[in-house]
Formats: sequence, structure tokens, C-alpha cells
Amino acid sequence: MKRVYNFSAGPGVLPEAVLKDAASEMLDYQNNGMSVMEMSHRTPMFQKIIDDAQKDLRTLMNIPDNYKVLFLQGGASLQFSMIPMNLMKKGVADYIVTGAWAKKAAAEAKKFGKVNIIASSEDKMFSYIPDVSDLKISDDADYVHMCDNNTIYGTKFHHLPNTKGKVLVSDISSCILSEEIDVSKFGLLYAGAQKNIGPAGITVVIIREDLIREDMPVNTPTMLRYDIHASKGSMYNTPPTYGIYLCGKTFQWLLNLGGIKAINKINEEKAALLYDYLDQSKLFFGTVEKNSRSIMNVCFKTNDPELDAKFISNAKNYDIVNIKGHRSIGGMRASMYNAMPVDGIKALVDYMKIFEKENLK
Amino acid sequence: MKRVYNFSAGPGVLPEAVLKDAASEMLDYQNNGMSVMEMSHRTPMFQKIIDDAQKDLRTLMNIPDNYKVLFLQGGASLQFSMIPMNLMKKGVADYIVTGAWAKKAAAEAKKFGKVNIIASSEDKMFSYIPDVSDLKISDDADYVHMCDNNTIYGTKFHHLPNTKGKVLVSDISSCILSEEIDVSKFGLLYAGAQKNIGPAGITVVIIREDLIREDMPVNTPTMLRYDIHASKGSMYNTPPTYGIYLCGKTFQWLLNLGGIKAINKINEEKAALLYDYLDQSKLFFGTVEKNSRSIMNVCFKTNDPELDAKFISNAKNYDIVNIKGHRSIGGMRASMYNAMPVDGIKALVDYMKIFEKENLK
Repeated sequence: MKRVYNFSAGPGVLPEAVLKDAASEMLDYQNNGMSVMEMSHRTPMFQKIIDDAQKDLRTLMNIPDNYKVLFLQGGASLQFSMIPMNLMKKGVADYIVTGAWAKKAAAEAKKFGKVNIIASSEDKMFSYIPDVSDLKISDDADYVHMCDNNTIYGTKFHHLPNTKGKVLVSDISSCILSEEIDVSKFGLLYAGAQKNIGPAGITVVIIREDLIREDMPVNTPTMLRYDIHASKGSMYNTPPTYGIYLCGKTFQWLLNLGGIKAINKINEEKAALLYDYLDQSKLFFGTVEKNSRSIMNVCFKTNDPELDAKFISNAKNYDIVNIKGHRSIGGMRASMYNAMPVDGIKALVDYMKIFEKENLK
Repeated sequence: MKRVYNFSAGPGVLPEAVLKDAASEMLDYQNNGMSVMEMSHRTPMFQKIIDDAQKDLRTLMNIPDNYKVLFLQGGASLQFSMIPMNLMKKGVADYIVTGAWAKKAAAEAKKFGKVNIIASSEDKMFSYIPDVSDLKISDDADYVHMCDNNTIYGTKFHHLPNTKGKVLVSDISSCILSEEIDVSKFGLLYAGAQKNIGPAGITVVIIREDLIREDMPVNTPTMLRYDIHASKGSMYNTPPTYGIYLCGKTFQWLLNLGGIKAINKINEEKAALLYDYLDQSKLFFGTVEKNSRSIMNVCFKTNDPELDAKFISNAKNYDIVNIKGHRSIGGMRASMYNAMPVDGIKALVDYMKIFEKENLK
């Protein structure tokens, strides 16, 4: 069996222990004579799987009791619609645009009400996080929306925006479970699973109970109502059962490691290995402002696109794959989610050193 | 390793060969050094997986070229909204109500336009399929909706409704790939994967191209537009990659078996084993009209609910599980999807014979 260092931005690397466990249980889950995939979601066996997954996520993120945890379908993209449809009461929302996804979220919200872009870093190709300490928050805003970690550009908020009392909504798809966060500061948090949690096809939504409305417009699709999913424990209809089981396994893996504090220490160590090297390199440089750096997605380049292409192409010789940057900014990107071992970053930095030695003129 | 005969109505039994294959590739897909779950959907590796899945489904169902095949999320329940949102141009649709799911689909459609219930079998607890040869089709109906196989009650249409030229839309969640169908007779077919295809979390939609609208109301959520998914090859956003891979494996398994004609022969054989026994039993009886019988879901009872409970409870001694009928009708239900081996039905009938001998007074 071969395993590579997979720096994909998502779907991305998953913990090897989780995959091994899943493989061993594929035909017979805990002596029940069937795969989790073959289980009715209305059985006590599956109920325990989803209950445990929720309980473990609550423990990991220290989620207060007045928040619901939902396992939904449709990715963050469906949340781009559900959030304004469910949270806009006065029909106004403020969006902070720090990347392509935040921009897409804002564009989708415009279908359902008035959207004010209260901050943006598009002027410099989203290479920084704008100052959000004193924004022009709309008086009648139902919420303020941000995207915490910007996967494409490799930026991350290091201070939460001052929303001046308005509800804060955050897309944490590419940083969930990578560091401790204070859930109580948010009205709604959401994340596609396919980066730090599990397979694509699950979206985790953490929503403060008082934001769950029942007085929705009559023509709201049932599947797009948080109140329906919340009242049915994420089982209004058949949920993506196997994906939820795998998310649960990742939560267990994290708890066994020591929780978020422990994984964050490893993540900081991994990021330091790469950023420290970048900061002294004479060939490679990081593409974002230092105080906006992400520890999950690290974007870097040389000054020569041909050299970048060579670096990307030769990486496979070191079992390093999916290191190419997003087409919109070029260069390289190393996505270093929780499941990426420290050895992966060491292998990458070693390769960069060799490449620098060979190619620096 | 233990395997049982799993008669679950869905999620249900999957082909053992598919599960074995998936387990063996869990950590390393075709020497790529990663699980399919860890693959970016924007890689050639995954593109081939989704392309092959689509190609194989087209072959199996003989889908004409003027139909798009979409792999979506949200289950049949999200289709209950998407169908009227996308297909209602004049704002009217006719629904045939032959079960709880068809009824739910009609109720959801009412949010988006006028719905006429043109036939129903609710008067007799959905135990039959009404005569649909000469329905009162609405002049301005955009489509006629049916649910082909009714999972809860064990009924199945054996003749398509005469729609008098209107577009026919059918929910084939619990009978897709179990028998040959003429796709060209339908405008749209849809099916949740978790019965005859793969894991929960994928919905297959087969839609005639001329029904895909671009002139949608501006406040339609992007993820609920067929035109978006069709133009992006089901990858507008990250699709449920692992589920699509497993669906593809099931399609391959069916092709290797000889396709739909071959599996249908086996399904008919399985159904005959159980129905023939039921028809001569002095203890058990089928609950639906003979000419409305499903070969996928067989509902039966004794005349004594306590005896039913005893039958269900003792079944596990014969490795027969999930044989309990839906709570709305009680009794027993044997869901016999493609992946249920003939031996499973033989084991069930053998158990019924023993039970009848012991309990017939």
C-alpha cells in the first residue's frame, strides 16, 4: 500500500487511523453483520452514531447548550442561500469580502435582501485581512458574515470583527477544529466537512437557538429551513449516514489526540516549519501579508512561473502531491489540514531546500 | 466477519463485492496513494470516476442523449422542491398520490404553484395503484408527478399513466435499476441512492434537456437550479465524491451481472419465491392488491399483531433483520433490493414456513 503527502485544498487528506478503521468495519460494523452504509437511519445503531458524533463535536468545540449542531447536505454553497433565507428578518446583511467564497456568499445573499459590503481585500487580490476593528455596520443588519480562513489565498482572521452587537456568521470550512474558537461569539458557524472533518457531502452548521425561525415565508423549500432540521435532529429525511459516521471517527481521533488544544499545537508547529523556511528563502516567498497568514493553507511562489511549474511537476518524486496553487493566483499552495502529519511538512521543506539549491541563480 | 440478511427499506443492503472492493481501496485507490475520499474533485482521477459512473448508468438504463444525468445532494426531499421550482412555468402540476412520499411531494409543490391531485389510493391505505389510463389531466399542467414504487406499502405501477401529452415526472427511488424502463417516456426521473444504488447522500436526476430552464426567478437558490448543475457536470460545488465512487461501483457490478435484464430476472425470481409462498400460506397474507405488487418491497401480515411482533423478534435467530413493517401500516416488510441475494429470500421463506407450522392453530 502506497500513501503520499496529499496537500489538496479539499477534499483533502484524512487521518490514516480513521480510514483504516473504516476499511476494517466496511462489511460488518461492530458485529451487526452490515456496513454502516447499509443501516437504516431509523435504527438505534445509527442513532448512536449520530448522537456520539454530535456529542464529541460539542466536547471538542466546547459548544454551549443553547446552540444546535446540524449535519446537513449541499455544502457551504447551500448555506450561502440558507443563511440569508433563514436569518434575514429585516432583509439586510453586512458581508466582509476576503476571498472568492466570501464574495460568492455575498452575491447569493443579494437574491434575498440588501447586502452591504462593509470591508474587502479584493484590491490586493485578497492577500490580506482588512482591519475589522471599526467597520460601518448597518443599523438594520440582521447579521455580519465573514469567511474565517480563505482557502484559495491562505489568509486567516486573527481578530474577530467588531460587529457592534450584530449577530456574527462565519464560514469556517477550512479551519474548523484546527484551533480553539469561542463559539459563543457567533450566531452561526458553518463548515463543509471535506477539509478538516470527513468526506464531501456533509455540512456542519452550529446555530444559536434563538436564531432558528419558524415564521418562514410559505414558499421556503422545507429542506432549506433550519427549524425543520433542528426539530428532527438532522434526520428530517435520510441523512448522509456513512459520511456522518466518518466525521464521528475524526472527532474521536481528535479527542484521542488530546482535543483542539493538542492539534492546534501540532498545526502551529507545522506552519512554523514552512513559514520559517519561506521567510529566509532566497527563492520562495509567501504571497500574503504576515499578519494575515493561515496555518491551514500556505501560498507561496518563486519569481518565475516556469520555475513554479517545475517545482510542482517534480514534487511527485518526493511523494508530494496537489501542491499547485489555485488557478486564480498561480504558484504553490500547501494545504496542511489536521490530518497532514508533521513529516509531510518536513518532506516538503526538504524538497524546497533541494530545489532552491539546484535552481537559485 | 458476520453478514446478515438485511431487509431494510433504505438505506439498505449493498452488493458485498462493492463493499469488499471499497474496503480494499480505502487507503490507496489504484496506487495513487490516497483514498477516493481524499481526492480533490478537480483532479483527472476523480473526473474519470464521475464520468465512468455517468457513462455506466447511461448504458444500464439506455438513457437517450438528450437527457442529462445529475448527481445531486439533498435526497428525494429536496427534489420535491426543485421539481416545481424548475418545471412549473404556468404554475400548475398534477400529482398522483399513491403513498406518503407522493403526498409529501404534492404538499411541497403547493408552495410553488397550483397542485391538482388527479388520482389517489389513500382511501384504502395506499394498498393499490389507481387506474391511471384516463385521468383528468389539467389543461395547463406543466407536468404530471408519480411515485413509481411505493416503499412503505409495497405497491408499484405496472402501467404508466396516460398524461395526454404532458411531461411525466417520476420518483423511482426504490425501483431504479430493478427493471428495464423506457426513459424517453419521462421528462424527469429521480432517485435517492440509498436503496438500489449506493450510500445515502446522493440523488440521481435524469432530466430531458429541453426542460432545463435558465429563465428562473432571480431569488432561486443557485444550488436548486438544474441549469447550474447541468452546465457544471454536477460539480458546481464539491460533490459527494465518495458516494459517487460507490454508485459507480454498483453500476459496474450490475454491468458485470449482465445489466438490468439480468438483475430483473433475479428480482422476479426472488419476488415469486415470497409471493408464491404468501399466496398459499394459511397464516401470512400480502397486504396489497395483487395487480399492484412491488418486487422490491413486499408487505405482509398475520391476522394477529402479537404474532407479527413475535415473528419480527425471532427473525434475528435466522440472521434476518429489519423485517418490521413501517409503523403506519404495521406487520412485516421485506425490502428485496438488487443486492439482496436469492438465498436471503430462501432463508426468509424457510423461516416463515417454520413459523407457520409452529403458530398456526
